[in-house]
Amino acid sequence: MATVSELPVSPLAPERFPNLPKVAGVEAVTYSLGLYKGKVRDDLLVVHFPEGAAAGGIFTTSSTRSDDVDRCRAALKAGGGKARVLVVNTGNSNAFTGAAGIAKNAATIASAMKLSGCGEHEVFISATGVIGEPLPAHIVSGGVEKVWSGLGAPDWEKVANCIRTTDTFAKAAGETVDLNRRNVNILGIAKGSGMIQPNMATTLNYMFTDAALAPNVCQALISRLGDLTYNCITVDSDTSTSDTLLFFATGAAGGEPIHNPDDPRLEGFVEAMHRVLLDLATQIVRDGEGATKIIEITVEGAASDASAKVIACSIANSPLVKTAIAASDANWGRVVMAIGKTAEPVERDRLSLWFGDHAVATNGARAAGYSEAVATRAVSGEQVFIRANVGVGEGRARVWTCDLTDGYVKINGAYRS
Amino acid sequence: MATVSELPVSPLAPERFPNLPKVAGVEAVTYSLGLYKGKVRDDLLVVHFPEGAAAGGIFTTSSTRSDDVDRCRAALKAGGGKARVLVVNTGNSNAFTGAAGIAKNAATIASAMKLSGCGEHEVFISATGVIGEPLPAHIVSGGVEKVWSGLGAPDWEKVANCIRTTDTFAKAAGETVDLNRRNVNILGIAKGSGMIQPNMATTLNYMFTDAALAPNVCQALISRLGDLTYNCITVDSDTSTSDTLLFFATGAAGGEPIHNPDDPRLEGFVEAMHRVLLDLATQIVRDGEGATKIIEITVEGAASDASAKVIACSIANSPLVKTAIAASDANWGRVVMAIGKTAEPVERDRLSLWFGDHAVATNGARAAGYSEAVATRAVSGEQVFIRANVGVGEGRARVWTCDLTDGYVKINGAYRS
Repeated sequence: MATVSELPVSPLAPERFPNLPKVAGVEAVTYSLGLYKGKVRDDLLVVHFPEGAAAGGIFTTSSTRSDDVDRCRAALKAGGGKARVLVVNTGNSNAFTGAAGIAKNAATIASAMKLSGCGEHEVFISATGVIGEPLPAHIVSGGVEKVWSGLGAPDWEKVANCIRTTDTFAKAAGETVDLNRRNVNILGIAKGSGMIQPNMATTLNYMFTDAALAPNVCQALISRLGDLTYNCITVDSDTSTSDTLLFFATGAAGGEPIHNPDDPRLEGFVEAMHRVLLDLATQIVRDGEGATKIIEITVEGAASDASAKVIACSIANSPLVKTAIAASDANWGRVVMAIGKTAEPVERDRLSLWFGDHAVATNGARAAGYSEAVATRAVSGEQVFIRANVGVGEGRARVWTCDLTDGYVKINGAYRS
Repeated sequence: MATVSELPVSPLAPERFPNLPKVAGVEAVTYSLGLYKGKVRDDLLVVHFPEGAAAGGIFTTSSTRSDDVDRCRAALKAGGGKARVLVVNTGNSNAFTGAAGIAKNAATIASAMKLSGCGEHEVFISATGVIGEPLPAHIVSGGVEKVWSGLGAPDWEKVANCIRTTDTFAKAAGETVDLNRRNVNILGIAKGSGMIQPNMATTLNYMFTDAALAPNVCQALISRLGDLTYNCITVDSDTSTSDTLLFFATGAAGGEPIHNPDDPRLEGFVEAMHRVLLDLATQIVRDGEGATKIIEITVEGAASDASAKVIACSIANSPLVKTAIAASDANWGRVVMAIGKTAEPVERDRLSLWFGDHAVATNGARAAGYSEAVATRAVSGEQVFIRANVGVGEGRARVWTCDLTDGYVKINGAYRS
């Protein structure tokens, strides 16, 4: 795996970059604009889709989000979900750059339109990196013009490396699945390591399929499945200004497009897409800055699924819970604290808690069979499972996070300077 | 200053324990129940007030709060704000201990009633320490009976040391002020270092005065001023199960009690009490686990004061902002991110930001006169000032926090085990 970060690879990284299926109709090329001073690495990705490709997407809800995000959202709305070009740069998020940011995006879109012969709303743009530093208006558009002739079958490892920032490994996942008696392919790439608490989507993530899906199906599937995956992870409770999760369907696998997101023929496809998204989302957690453990938190018995998610995120974002887990300390009282601090309905005296399969608390007090040794074992491995029942109703949610170590502090004290 | 914590004293600690006024009518005694295994230190505080003393208090809103907190709240309500005894233990929070916790409190209150000859609702109890570990029912009440005869003029440094847990220094503040042509005294003690994001009050904090104030005045003042001080600090966004801020007025300075919280004669008293509370609250921030800097965050131009506070807390709790400040990195883009991630109204293109007096961003983009060197200087000292105007309305709030260092991670990986 090519190394573009100077940080050691996360101990939770997958053993190798995955074998990925070919997604017919997707062409890509990467390039170095030199946005990382003193480092030789690709920082520009251009992807091209055939005529008729469809798109859907979800985005950060940040009120200080970048113009790039606003334009993607506007493109989906005004263009009806047609897609021809995706342009991504790293090294600078173009967020909070005012007029300079708008000029950069206008120039980039103009170049992509000219080169592909498409309309304004068929071009999607993303950027990630430092916030608030203006870029020259033509630096990205110039890059697009320079590399356009190099578009071809993607080298996905190169593509996934190109969109990394503080990520310590390249993130991708894919599957081949039967759809309406045809083999179709799903493939996603992602970047993300810090500033991770998606609030619609997270960081930069792109899903591609060669299945024939109408734009409304793309949008429905990415909204529904993004909510169950990307919107259920957190590294540090910080929500990025650039979060983008886009889904492109080229239709190049052939067949009539599917127009109803609830079409029963989609069942296997939806399951596979869910697995790919969850794989990518948890890869981001596995690459959480400084992470040594991945923690899966399940909250049951809440007033609603939404309430369960607020409580699960409160546990997942508690610095006291995360530092205890980092130290393999079965300090379950801190989980009780994190459950209690939200405004959500909780029945203290019916609250029960498990670390792995071990009941640590039952009905508002320490469990009768509590064993410090067993509880400690449950939080000592690389994967930790916490489950709580808050004794109110039937609401349920599951979120994923990582532990908080001095590695996080070191990385984030040094990232920009 | 006596050392009860094994941690090095915070670099932000005051130079010495303050000179404090005498508060007539307050008697106290401390004792070691042996709740800190292997450590010799006081862990029990008993305070006694004369007949006629008044009380008010605010408490954690945690839904997993301790029975101790519930009893204080109930005592104020049922007893009409009369106070005779305060019993505090450290070493065990008695939170999430079910029937055992209730039994411990019943026994403690019974002993205090018998010894002082007061009613059930004139006894206030607090506990702090590990969550979820049951205590024997009679351990605290036995201690109260043993030390009762030792009640006398308080050694405030000993008292402040007795209520410490991971605090690296004893916290107290006091003033003498004119009230209705009499000298009256105000004095507060506090503990707190981690699990600090007050949500009504914070941790254990006790204010005493010899002024003659009716219970409704005690309650009105502590609610109003607690909101502007304790409820405006955060170390780690985690809200304790035991947060308690109690205010006792012995009336021993003489004079008729004041019955109206808006009585103009209270003006100087209220100002002094506000200063004492703010002094104590910021001492907690100065002792934030691992802290090397104290950060004052002012948000202006918000839709309301409440909205400004949500935004200010979002900045104050952002791990990415806190780690950048720890590293003296003027990464103001992360402040923009933290402002954007709440659901509060913000006008991105009218947002302005200052580090100290230096404008780093104006109207949605980097300020024309931005200097990296000046901005870096502003975040390099022990005191950092961040100010934001979010361009919406007249709402305003100020909060205090500390930076996030590897010290926090180390302390909290080791605290319990």
